[in-house]
Amino acid sequence: MNLQSLNTPAALIDVARMNRNIARMQQRLNALGVAFRPHVKTSKCQPVVQAQITAGARGITVSTLKEAEQFFAAGIRDIVYAVGIAPSKLPQALALRRAGCNLKLVTDSVASVDAIVAFGREHGEIFEVWIEIDVDGHRSGIEPESDSLLPVASALVEGGMRLGGVIAHAGSSYDYDTHEALVRISEQERAGAVRAAERLREAGLPCEVVSIGSTPTALAAEHLEGVTEVRAGVYVFFDLVMHNVGVNETSEIALSVLTTVIGHQPEKGWAIVDAGWMAMSRDRGTQRQKRDFGYGLVCSENGEVLGGYLMTGANQEHGIVSRSGTADLDIERSFPIGTRLRILPNHACATGAQYPDYVALAPDGELETWPRFHGW
Amino acid sequence: MNLQSLNTPAALIDVARMNRNIARMQQRLNALGVAFRPHVKTSKCQPVVQAQITAGARGITVSTLKEAEQFFAAGIRDIVYAVGIAPSKLPQALALRRAGCNLKLVTDSVASVDAIVAFGREHGEIFEVWIEIDVDGHRSGIEPESDSLLPVASALVEGGMRLGGVIAHAGSSYDYDTHEALVRISEQERAGAVRAAERLREAGLPCEVVSIGSTPTALAAEHLEGVTEVRAGVYVFFDLVMHNVGVNETSEIALSVLTTVIGHQPEKGWAIVDAGWMAMSRDRGTQRQKRDFGYGLVCSENGEVLGGYLMTGANQEHGIVSRSGTADLDIERSFPIGTRLRILPNHACATGAQYPDYVALAPDGELETWPRFHGW
Repeated sequence: MNLQSLNTPAALIDVARMNRNIARMQQRLNALGVAFRPHVKTSKCQPVVQAQITAGARGITVSTLKEAEQFFAAGIRDIVYAVGIAPSKLPQALALRRAGCNLKLVTDSVASVDAIVAFGREHGEIFEVWIEIDVDGHRSGIEPESDSLLPVASALVEGGMRLGGVIAHAGSSYDYDTHEALVRISEQERAGAVRAAERLREAGLPCEVVSIGSTPTALAAEHLEGVTEVRAGVYVFFDLVMHNVGVNETSEIALSVLTTVIGHQPEKGWAIVDAGWMAMSRDRGTQRQKRDFGYGLVCSENGEVLGGYLMTGANQEHGIVSRSGTADLDIERSFPIGTRLRILPNHACATGAQYPDYVALAPDGELETWPRFHGW
Repeated sequence: MNLQSLNTPAALIDVARMNRNIARMQQRLNALGVAFRPHVKTSKCQPVVQAQITAGARGITVSTLKEAEQFFAAGIRDIVYAVGIAPSKLPQALALRRAGCNLKLVTDSVASVDAIVAFGREHGEIFEVWIEIDVDGHRSGIEPESDSLLPVASALVEGGMRLGGVIAHAGSSYDYDTHEALVRISEQERAGAVRAAERLREAGLPCEVVSIGSTPTALAAEHLEGVTEVRAGVYVFFDLVMHNVGVNETSEIALSVLTTVIGHQPEKGWAIVDAGWMAMSRDRGTQRQKRDFGYGLVCSENGEVLGGYLMTGANQEHGIVSRSGTADLDIERSFPIGTRLRILPNHACATGAQYPDYVALAPDGELETWPRFHGW
């Protein structure tokens, strides 16, 4: 297997870049004195997660119970399922715990706690549950100063479950693009989670874990006093959204889509490629950022950015590549039929999900197939 | 297996609706006197395609050679691969033809024809090739009056390949939303393809097939004189984009995502559900249409539209459901934790692709798992 003979489109992992990204995050969190629990929803791929563990990660974060099952089967025991548990998923969570998985659940309401307690008592299981804290209003969780915090915590403890800690995610960090703003939202994430933990402890309730994180805040935080662990996912590959946020160079993006030129519309300056939105995903996350990269930034087959060519349009299996600014009216000669290009994606989590497997490109040029799973 | 015990998120096919959609399109094209060749990229699912064939479809259209391989293995021989062939995919196409698949390729340039001819001669294979005609400037193809048309056709014939016909797709039909505009673009699609065919025949070249189609134009065409076959894909499920285009009611949408309420932000009027963009896809195709449905239109568990609730936001595995217009401050009672909802998707092709299988809900309430494949 070599790059020239690969069927396209293909999802390539530049392993050298990936390893540098993993090392950068791990070193940073080591220096800040906290444990690191990567979010594996980005890759859903065993060799990627193994590299994160080998570099020093302690446990993983998952977004589905299928991820928990797959990675537990691969030998990882310490797993937090960072999405509020649906009552109907409790049997699946129970099965994982009974099999020896140290699975932690997340809640943010008394109604959800009631369901966990009822099910746990019925089955004689003491679930470990973390309370989700809302530090930026972007999604779920209980605000640090909310009157709801202590009733949720008390209901858990009185119901006989194990209150393990608090968990927060400043998802709104993706909306910023200056270092100052990222430092501010990072401090807001830290302070909110720590304040919630303090309120629990002041009320005599346990709160061992204070878990926060997102790729931008993990990289911007100046200190993490009171925090015990950080979570981050997309840093392992990075992408164009993160580049616009300001946390990586395009040369650090470890995931790209290999594609082949199949035609042209020379008068328009278009090359047509065999990667459309099915290959890139429909993610247009850079649309409202400081630079809109369309469906992706075009690189040569060996991964060098080709100044100013974007995938400006996409149908299911067709992509339109064109130069931003002035049309390249010589595009038939710039990219003849058969030319291989690599496209850097807007959002690595979404692009990876379009593929049954990655092709890992090792520093020595060797290629390996790395399977990933999908579905729930 | 019953609806109440299904793991969520799940991709549900309402089989009664699907069958009505299939019958509607087939009857319409029978009445117009043309053959119908459905595009299977929408479902990538054998039982769905079998229902289309049983209803009268003749052959299929595919967007990837993997689709061709999968459906050929399931017994379908007459297949057109409707994406310009990359030279590197010719060995895969050859293998299909050698196995007995009547696979047709598509081209729109002399450069591509040269590659087909060289490979065909090298391997002693007469590929059947259709010439892609550009009827609306939206993507690939040769304009009907273009000087490039005859040289491409001649290169094919002189190279010893079989020129099977012309193929056009008015993809821009998705941009309209009145019947008059759809009739107009439909006629433009028909007239352009027929004109190209006439030019070939006038030059003494063969052009047996005149293939056109998209879901909106197939449903709007008033006559199809000179056309031999129509292609359409998304009609099998329909979706919110097509609803905005004006070709289906929401009650005809056969694909939905079953999800569970996992939390609330009551002050904001939000219910949080366990279907995020991974379950819906990142497709925001209704964003620029006459009604923006966010990430989807919310229905009850049994499929009735709940006036005015949309999935207004989505993270990877979290969806935010809220009422459009005034917030539902009683949303905790409207949709308690554990409530099951169905979400109608913007774009059925993109949403289906997020799942390893569909759950088919038969008219009698029976559920069946229908696998779909992904990747290339």
